[in-house]
Amino acid sequence: MKFNLRARVVAEFLGTAFLVAAVVGSGIMAERLAEGNIALALLANTIATGSALVALILTFGPISGAHMNPAVSFAMGLRRLMPWPEVVAYIAAQFPGGVVGTLLAHLMFAQPIFSLSHHQRAGWPQLLSEFVATFGLLSVIWGCSRTKSAVATPIAVGAYIIAAYWFTASTSFANPAVTLARSITDTFTGIRPIDVLPFIATQVAGAITATRLFEWLLPSEVSGVQSGASGAPVEARG
Amino acid sequence: MKFNLRARVVAEFLGTAFLVAAVVGSGIMAERLAEGNIALALLANTIATGSALVALILTFGPISGAHMNPAVSFAMGLRRLMPWPEVVAYIAAQFPGGVVGTLLAHLMFAQPIFSLSHHQRAGWPQLLSEFVATFGLLSVIWGCSRTKSAVATPIAVGAYIIAAYWFTASTSFANPAVTLARSITDTFTGIRPIDVLPFIATQVAGAITATRLFEWLLPSEVSGVQSGASGAPVEARG
Amino acid sequence: MKFNLRARVVAEFLGTAFLVAAVVGSGIMAERLAEGNIALALLANTIATGSALVALILTFGPISGAHMNPAVSFAMGLRRLMPWPEVVAYIAAQFPGGVVGTLLAHLMFAQPIFSLSHHQRAGWPQLLSEFVATFGLLSVIWGCSRTKSAVATPIAVGAYIIAAYWFTASTSFANPAVTLARSITDTFTGIRPIDVLPFIATQVAGAITATRLFEWLLPSEVSGVQSGASGAPVEARG
Amino acid sequence: MKFNLRARVVAEFLGTAFLVAAVVGSGIMAERLAEGNIALALLANTIATGSALVALILTFGPISGAHMNPAVSFAMGLRRLMPWPEVVAYIAAQFPGGVVGTLLAHLMFAQPIFSLSHHQRAGWPQLLSEFVATFGLLSVIWGCSRTKSAVATPIAVGAYIIAAYWFTASTSFANPAVTLARSITDTFTGIRPIDVLPFIATQVAGAITATRLFEWLLPSEVSGVQSGASGAPVEARG
Repeated sequence: MKFNLRARVVAEFLGTAFLVAAVVGSGIMAERLAEGNIALALLANTIATGSALVALILTFGPISGAHMNPAVSFAMGLRRLMPWPEVVAYIAAQFPGGVVGTLLAHLMFAQPIFSLSHHQRAGWPQLLSEFVATFGLLSVIWGCSRTKSAVATPIAVGAYIIAAYWFTASTSFANPAVTLARSITDTFTGIRPIDVLPFIATQVAGAITATRLFEWLLPSEVSGVQSGASGAPVEARG
Repeated sequence: MKFNLRARVVAEFLGTAFLVAAVVGSGIMAERLAEGNIALALLANTIATGSALVALILTFGPISGAHMNPAVSFAMGLRRLMPWPEVVAYIAAQFPGGVVGTLLAHLMFAQPIFSLSHHQRAGWPQLLSEFVATFGLLSVIWGCSRTKSAVATPIAVGAYIIAAYWFTASTSFANPAVTLARSITDTFTGIRPIDVLPFIATQVAGAITATRLFEWLLPSEVSGVQSGASGAPVEARG
Repeated sequence: MKFNLRARVVAEFLGTAFLVAAVVGSGIMAERLAEGNIALALLANTIATGSALVALILTFGPISGAHMNPAVSFAMGLRRLMPWPEVVAYIAAQFPGGVVGTLLAHLMFAQPIFSLSHHQRAGWPQLLSEFVATFGLLSVIWGCSRTKSAVATPIAVGAYIIAAYWFTASTSFANPAVTLARSITDTFTGIRPIDVLPFIATQVAGAITATRLFEWLLPSEVSGVQSGASGAPVEARG
Repeated sequence: MKFNLRARVVAEFLGTAFLVAAVVGSGIMAERLAEGNIALALLANTIATGSALVALILTFGPISGAHMNPAVSFAMGLRRLMPWPEVVAYIAAQFPGGVVGTLLAHLMFAQPIFSLSHHQRAGWPQLLSEFVATFGLLSVIWGCSRTKSAVATPIAVGAYIIAAYWFTASTSFANPAVTLARSITDTFTGIRPIDVLPFIATQVAGAITATRLFEWLLPSEVSGVQSGASGAPVEARG
């Protein structure tokens, strides 16, 4: 069955909102309870985020492919798995979806609805981390794209982000919509607005590099490549 | 193979009892061992609850659909996936099942068998959290309902609750039977009896909203939608 | 393909040895590193044990069914899924396998190879916990026995034990061979030799109760019930 | 579809680099944040490593089998599942891949790019641990090799390593390329260069022993045995 573009765009909006609410909300809860033990706070934040990704990709994958990430939608366009106007529609839903996710987390935790982050995340190690993180994320998505199991991509993406939270110095944002949405929260998971653009530029570079590499590693039968982020059939194209 | 209603109702009773025993019991154990480190206690409680959900949905899903949650059974009725008399029978098993779960946890940990909670959980942030939590839970269930993998819904629901424990301010009850059962334990996971009804009302509102939304997102071929909570075929209707 | 009994018995011996080495070894490591933080030590012990179960059932399930537990083999006999002489052969491999697992853990951690535990685990709450724990374990095994996914039972059993470590007061031994093997280690996971027999008796009672209940819940077509602990076909009988 | 050897060798290089970056990088992050709480640091390191393995095997398995481990490629040669020249090509990619992984972790965390470890890991308990760890890893790979589920081997290997981090005294390197790569980082996960060779020799012995044992346990129809580390078909041989 095919889903029309409107349903898929709503799915991307909802999915990204829930993803960001999970990242930001669990960060607030973890920081409140951990009493200064940052390792423990990050562990809780990590487990919540990875678990949310597994659940959300299984939930929205069958509808929209569950990109929830402009870098992923852009990569789908690059490999001609989605027409560009649809890529634009997806991205146009993901950014406001992410912002709504932050606001929702603030409301649930009785925080000021909006606050600019003062958390500095700059410098070459941070940018290299984001390049590696997004390169890895797209590698996972392309590598899993031929697997037939409906749970392979959701599990792989969730597991990857759990690992990447810890093995990159930036805790692996790897997602332009999430990055923007995390600039308007002055809590555990925030990022200074001034650091957003370099993060996004590096993420896009990592996504392009992985996509080109896997075009060579897993070439040709593009038709055999299924919807990246979900393992759901690409029939899901309006 | 079809299961008769009596077997399915027993499965709902048992499943809900085990679910609540897992929530309440692991909360008692975690609080005892964590010596005031609430983040660590909640992390143990989270992992135990999410793992219990995965195991219980895989176990009872093939028999009854493993709703273990009146909000889920009610939503099945709303979408006409279950006749209303069966919905009532399920719910009539889930509430006492949950209560038995609390008593069982008390017995195992040598607590007074029954004690009213003094844990206040009130205010708009808490209620918004329960609305979001149950909206999300039903979204996960409907979103996974077309997936063919037998492990997709169990993994998605367990992973979702692990995340929601941390990204909502209420630690995501999202279940009227569990909410009632947690009012009679004055331990880590308790809730004041006076806070129960507003929680349940908000949970039902969240469940209805998600169900109506996914009726539009994943419409029409209702016949293609399988038993919500388990991915098990709905043939399992006596 | 059918495996001969000798290969299956070796698999049960190896699997039980690895399971006990994982339980006892991770308990030693966790206690050493946690510096008195019991909640953290138990969390590490829990995650290691649950993960070991997932890996071991996936590994040995296709050969022997990966019971690694006399209560499980006994239950298979009760439901006539295995002839009694094979049940006896399995159990005769599991007990020494468990003992070897403890010795192996001691050798790896440079402990005295053998030491009787002084860890008291007695009283009705402990015994009720073991009854509930083993009742639940067999429920999981029988409930998953019709699922076709090869990963359902391994994931369900691993997840169940992770939960049961926390929601029972005994940390859920639920396995006579593991119970005996844990009596000869005076470390984190030990149990006094004098407490072993009551534990085993209660475990067997829990296993029988669950097996009789699921005989009614999931009746008749015994042929449709596959090898309990692994989801592997019972064709695996020499 | 068959992949040519060049693509598969690149996949092995990339996969091993990411694996080591995950091990070393998450160790650095965990040590920095845990403020001396070694149990918590190791728990974070464990979860990151196990999750990385799940993601990487799902990603690179369909291309190269995702060995990412010379002991695994060698064992494939032993059972004639790969021609020896390809085994050599794989191993020749894994060692430099691992080294690049360490350097990448150093760059992301702004560490000196290269530093010899002072972390002593010697003595019989450590070597016995590595023998057991690698014996177990190969057992998992061979045991899962007949399972049809695409997620069985990735989940089993990730879960096994999570357990083995805790139940062996060496934290289970079980991989010659990872061992070498961890000798050039003077951080949490390092190993003194002088301890590398005994580790590797013991790992190879453990791999050979498990391979010979499973040749007997799961004999004959070698054709039925699929690519060890990934569950991917061995058709993936150029």
